[in-house]
Amino acid sequence: MTTHAEIDLSSEQALNAFRNAFQRHSAGVAIITLNNVDGSPVGFTATSLASLSARPPMLTFNTATTASSWPGLRDTDHVAIHMLGVRNHKLATIMAGPAPQRFVGDHWHRGEFNLPVLDDVTAVLVAKIVARNEINQAASIVAEVIDGFQGNDDDGLLYRERRYLAPRPLDGQD
Amino acid sequence: MTTHAEIDLSSEQALNAFRNAFQRHSAGVAIITLNNVDGSPVGFTATSLASLSARPPMLTFNTATTASSWPGLRDTDHVAIHMLGVRNHKLATIMAGPAPQRFVGDHWHRGEFNLPVLDDVTAVLVAKIVARNEINQAASIVAEVIDGFQGNDDDGLLYRERRYLAPRPLDGQD
Repeated sequence: MTTHAEIDLSSEQALNAFRNAFQRHSAGVAIITLNNVDGSPVGFTATSLASLSARPPMLTFNTATTASSWPGLRDTDHVAIHMLGVRNHKLATIMAGPAPQRFVGDHWHRGEFNLPVLDDVTAVLVAKIVARNEINQAASIVAEVIDGFQGNDDDGLLYRERRYLAPRPLDGQD
Repeated sequence: MTTHAEIDLSSEQALNAFRNAFQRHSAGVAIITLNNVDGSPVGFTATSLASLSARPPMLTFNTATTASSWPGLRDTDHVAIHMLGVRNHKLATIMAGPAPQRFVGDHWHRGEFNLPVLDDVTAVLVAKIVARNEINQAASIVAEVIDGFQGNDDDGLLYRERRYLAPRPLDGQD
């Protein structure tokens, strides 16, 4: 533990603390898809998806404004949010890989609002972006859910420290 | 899959889609602590913690503005963010329980900025709130990390559909 006398840390020290802590934070894995202004599909694997409120149903996710999906997030209104099961591990890898390859193949179709919808995930939400909170070279997006449907259920796909994981029951619970 | 002709859904249908989807989304578990304006400790278990950017190191988390911690989040500057391991399951339960009981006991101490810091977690970050994005009765908080330290490592504590979980390796991953 540092003391008040030591808190004038350099930015590198804060960055290291940040990285070390998030290496110990696990996250569920989602995929966000949308269209660029020209109608071409874009999307990305996200570990930042979070519920914001139930009434109205709103969620948040974060992105870098240098990312390939940012122009679409900035200039269009609708997104599809996909919840992933462990069976979707390869899909998560594809959608975290090189942007030009993410929609090459038959793993998706066009859905509501012409959004690119990925096949065989555990749930899909269709949402309208209601706020783009930009700060430096990042943005936290707020979206309101307007529709959704479920696929087959599965254990939820997890991510920690550059590895995908699966869940197991917690010993001693209940 | 619904069609364009069916998207005029009632708010109840959107709410059900939202709930059903988030029941299939797993999350890592964190605890956010801070002080009320009067200096009394407040805090809560959060499944919304997410990285926003590395340079500068920033993160986000969400809260209801009806929550016991909101007055402190609105009116003070600093928060402590705790990453939890599976050994911290009971701590997560305490900090998600009745607000008056959350700091009764010897499971915490005073740290930087007089923040309430919980003992024996896997990592702690000290952060300064830089934005409070309020919408309806919720708020998405943006905070910049200024310090942090690590405890003993552990499997990350997970949460899905009102149950805590632990991770296991994904079958077939390289």
